[in-house]
Amino acid sequence: MMYGYAGRILHIDLTKGSTKVIRLRRSVVKAYVGGKGFGARFLYDLAVPRVDPLSPSNPLMFFTGPITATGAPASARDVVVTKSPKSGTFLDSNSGGFWGCWLKIAGYDGLIITGRAGRLSYIYIHDGDVEIRDASSLKGYGVYATTEALIEEVGDKDAKVAAIGPAGENLVKLAGIVNDLHHVHARGGPGAVMGSKNLKAIVISADKRKPRFELADPEGFNEYNKKIIKEVVMGPPEEWARTDGTPIIVRWSNDVGVLPTHNFQYGVFDHVDEIDAEVLRRYRTSKAACYRCSIACRNLTRIKDDKWGEIVLDGPEYETIAMGGSNTGLSDFKAIIAWNNLVDDLGMDTISLGNVTALAMEAYERGYINKDDLDGLELRFGDADAQMELAKMIAYRRGVGDILAEGAREFVAWLGGDAYKMAMETKGLEYPAYDPRGSIGMALAYATADRGACHLRAWPIAAEAFGDMDPFTTEGKAKLVIEMQDLNAVKWSMVFCDFLDADYEMITNYFNYATGLDYKPSDMQLVGERINNLIRLFNVREGFSRKDDYIPYRVAYEEAKKGPNKGFRVKPEMFSRMLDEYYQLRGWDREGVPRKGKLRKLGLSKDAGKVNIVSVKY
Amino acid sequence: MMYGYAGRILHIDLTKGSTKVIRLRRSVVKAYVGGKGFGARFLYDLAVPRVDPLSPSNPLMFFTGPITATGAPASARDVVVTKSPKSGTFLDSNSGGFWGCWLKIAGYDGLIITGRAGRLSYIYIHDGDVEIRDASSLKGYGVYATTEALIEEVGDKDAKVAAIGPAGENLVKLAGIVNDLHHVHARGGPGAVMGSKNLKAIVISADKRKPRFELADPEGFNEYNKKIIKEVVMGPPEEWARTDGTPIIVRWSNDVGVLPTHNFQYGVFDHVDEIDAEVLRRYRTSKAACYRCSIACRNLTRIKDDKWGEIVLDGPEYETIAMGGSNTGLSDFKAIIAWNNLVDDLGMDTISLGNVTALAMEAYERGYINKDDLDGLELRFGDADAQMELAKMIAYRRGVGDILAEGAREFVAWLGGDAYKMAMETKGLEYPAYDPRGSIGMALAYATADRGACHLRAWPIAAEAFGDMDPFTTEGKAKLVIEMQDLNAVKWSMVFCDFLDADYEMITNYFNYATGLDYKPSDMQLVGERINNLIRLFNVREGFSRKDDYIPYRVAYEEAKKGPNKGFRVKPEMFSRMLDEYYQLRGWDREGVPRKGKLRKLGLSKDAGKVNIVSVKY
Repeated sequence: MMYGYAGRILHIDLTKGSTKVIRLRRSVVKAYVGGKGFGARFLYDLAVPRVDPLSPSNPLMFFTGPITATGAPASARDVVVTKSPKSGTFLDSNSGGFWGCWLKIAGYDGLIITGRAGRLSYIYIHDGDVEIRDASSLKGYGVYATTEALIEEVGDKDAKVAAIGPAGENLVKLAGIVNDLHHVHARGGPGAVMGSKNLKAIVISADKRKPRFELADPEGFNEYNKKIIKEVVMGPPEEWARTDGTPIIVRWSNDVGVLPTHNFQYGVFDHVDEIDAEVLRRYRTSKAACYRCSIACRNLTRIKDDKWGEIVLDGPEYETIAMGGSNTGLSDFKAIIAWNNLVDDLGMDTISLGNVTALAMEAYERGYINKDDLDGLELRFGDADAQMELAKMIAYRRGVGDILAEGAREFVAWLGGDAYKMAMETKGLEYPAYDPRGSIGMALAYATADRGACHLRAWPIAAEAFGDMDPFTTEGKAKLVIEMQDLNAVKWSMVFCDFLDADYEMITNYFNYATGLDYKPSDMQLVGERINNLIRLFNVREGFSRKDDYIPYRVAYEEAKKGPNKGFRVKPEMFSRMLDEYYQLRGWDREGVPRKGKLRKLGLSKDAGKVNIVSVKY
Repeated sequence: MMYGYAGRILHIDLTKGSTKVIRLRRSVVKAYVGGKGFGARFLYDLAVPRVDPLSPSNPLMFFTGPITATGAPASARDVVVTKSPKSGTFLDSNSGGFWGCWLKIAGYDGLIITGRAGRLSYIYIHDGDVEIRDASSLKGYGVYATTEALIEEVGDKDAKVAAIGPAGENLVKLAGIVNDLHHVHARGGPGAVMGSKNLKAIVISADKRKPRFELADPEGFNEYNKKIIKEVVMGPPEEWARTDGTPIIVRWSNDVGVLPTHNFQYGVFDHVDEIDAEVLRRYRTSKAACYRCSIACRNLTRIKDDKWGEIVLDGPEYETIAMGGSNTGLSDFKAIIAWNNLVDDLGMDTISLGNVTALAMEAYERGYINKDDLDGLELRFGDADAQMELAKMIAYRRGVGDILAEGAREFVAWLGGDAYKMAMETKGLEYPAYDPRGSIGMALAYATADRGACHLRAWPIAAEAFGDMDPFTTEGKAKLVIEMQDLNAVKWSMVFCDFLDADYEMITNYFNYATGLDYKPSDMQLVGERINNLIRLFNVREGFSRKDDYIPYRVAYEEAKKGPNKGFRVKPEMFSRMLDEYYQLRGWDREGVPRKGKLRKLGLSKDAGKVNIVSVKY
């Protein structure tokens, strides 16, 4: 018995149609904890260097962690790990809801999926059994219809479904994997990887009264959990989440001038009053929680009118409101709800989609593309109908949508000339909704995030524009970003959600109660550092180095035009200084390659070899 | 007027359905000559770093050179250039026949194709016009039927067709682009790139009596050409080509123990008597030549029996006989002809296909895969029917064929365990038909070839096992490989065929007569070096470095088991020594990155910058 874990990982090969169970090794648990950490280890070991992310041999993996489905706050989560078709990096994308909990309750810490099914299929996990079933009849179905049809088909109303929509089937690189209707493993294109495997969905039936795992000290765990719920969840740290959830950030961001507006041309939005949390409350029917989560950050909303009909949504979150609202110039909150609802059904990442939509709008305004290129579409900022139509063009790869389906980087390359100045991305992953020109640490966070521009690896704006640090100077930012990245690597390995305000002590306590191990917070910090270094080794193996840790032209050369940050830009020399310091503090060389000494301390020496067939097995 | 060139490059965007003509710049001509050189320059400038090779923004380009279609020997050729979906490197693949000549006669030095057509299409170039036409009705057609149908459709019996078969449509990474029925731009998967653009074929009508280009000194050119034809082509250097063509090499290779046999497990084939040039002669109906070529190396063959029916083939060449004959254990020459005929029609590279077929056979023999994984196929060495069936499984991506369609590297990764020991590849491109364990220079040639394991970048075996140099020692090999690589870069830029025994002097003379420029052989040598360095910069930008310049496990650790090289292997330390010397002589650092000083001398300093959006435009 390995407390805290089911102890088993399920390997499904869709080409052979075979399944086998791999025992979880204790050494892997100790070094990598779970979730993202497991993914880092398995991807490094299983993916052949330079594998095409959409080829059958790229493994698509899902992992839970030692606190998943335990009733700890913010613990109803799983992580998908694969090589990203968007950035070509290591990719982990996590998602809340119920599905991940069901996977663990059913007796698996993880799923590893390789190969490709001969026809569109779905996997059904139930009663200790695994079936690969035909899903041909679901071809082209949206996420909602797929979910409904599969729950019906397996005959278990309580079955949980993770599925792709048309975007994933069409290998759109903005495609996510959607579980429980509105929870999305969104960033980095995991839906395209699932689509490339001819896998429409994974359905899990499990009896939540009989979870197939045990905790080492259930009583201690529960007592500690009660304390945390009382002191943290119900206390001031989580008040924002309990009341408004992430939409509250719309106002915060606009106030400090980092709210992406018109493809990051501005950091303040004239119509912010029409898209903030107060507006959301008008459409809110209730708050909601993921499986056994005491925070209940989610907003259920409903609109009904002649234009949109009736829509019941789980959302929208801050990133969706900003990227598909202010960034595309859309101030009609009902339209944002409708867009969110459409995009979840098509199965895409609202962040990257909002980003490339705004980019295409700017390209249209500047004359790079015209109506003829867009099947007659007049793609102007703020036009809800055009924004909805473009989402479909991308999901179905129609016309210019086929290029946008590849992402911002590929779109500007296709446009040619000076178009690259408009692309907001790092490593091919589109910027999310914080403009670094109001919090310089974010520039470093995006540039060094493992999967490309991501705000969930480090969120220094919390200490900068939203806190006490100077948002315009580089001092201390490298250290801060590293600390946040290592802590988050552990959070995504446990697998906690972002919204638990957890430090190493809290995480370690949960870990020890669950597993029976006796870790110290410093041990856990080392786990975080180990995971980030192993992932960096993976990315280095794939050819990434300093040249890929960049900031977009706009951030570097165009000064903020409006708002409190007016006149500020992240000068390349400032950015370079932060990056130098970051590498140095990380123990990486000037090109961003981990040094031997650092790897030795982390027990990763053997992973540092040159990766070629002569010197290292692959 | 730019003598020797049409002066125009045609850019076709399949997403927009637009075409435009780019004037060829004199500076590009001077620095890069044509063909491969042009491709190196354009790919570096047009491809966004890390672009997915199968995405619409990866440019697919065809180039001719200053002597194309001039009646010079071995000048009926074009080069396709793109980012390879097989290796992820720069890719150039050239092909003979007529199509490339027609492109230049029609008035274009090159085609640049970007975007992706909304439905399966073909491009028709004729009378100074360009059309993008519907090819939906050709979906799934083989190359032969496609070629026939399009010649019929355009109503010009003399139209030339370059097309993809089912393999290209199915994005098989072994897919080539086939022109004039049996001439294949084969290596590195250009057919998959064409398939990803929904482009079935490019058809050209042109009036060969009115070529749309002029030579600077037609009389001087013709006089010099006559002299070369008399002294070189009709003399001893080309005798092998005029009489037997490449199949003569089967015997040479077996004699020196480098003939790949049973997936490179052996270097001699017990049944070599059944597959050599003498056997070929039995089936030969005539010799044949590409457009205005005086060498006429090609063998037209014909078989007719109950098993195979009647087959009329242009081939097989040495590489096909070795990779699809001895390497797969097939000693039935008629079966080799039938396989060649099938593979051309499906539109695949016989080298990579023969390699992965043999690999799959070894995997079958060793129990990694079994009948159940192969739809009942018993995949044994020497079984012609199994070999034919597997080719179809790969082209149509059926079952395990779907994995093999990705290549050797991905297949062994999917098998897992020790399977990597069987993979014969570098940078993901499969080894061609010379075992380096009988000519150590070939190990370096394969490891450092720009597009992955290729024998057409340097062919040191000519000086080693087939010449006077010691094939088992490293001395002088790095220098030899570099010299050959630079010379070949110029040959593929002119664009000459491999079979003209040309030195810098001859090439320069042709170049000067054609263009009116006054180059010295040393200028031309510098062009070759410039092209190879620019390509290295491209590959470095994509993340390639020393770790990717490797030799397969089998070459490094398994001694040759039979024949004259018995007991020999390319020890890693010997290989490393050659590689060190190679980098040093190249002026590259220990990781294989060109040093600034070298780049300055070649006029490439501005290409050496870090490639990121802050410091360099993309």
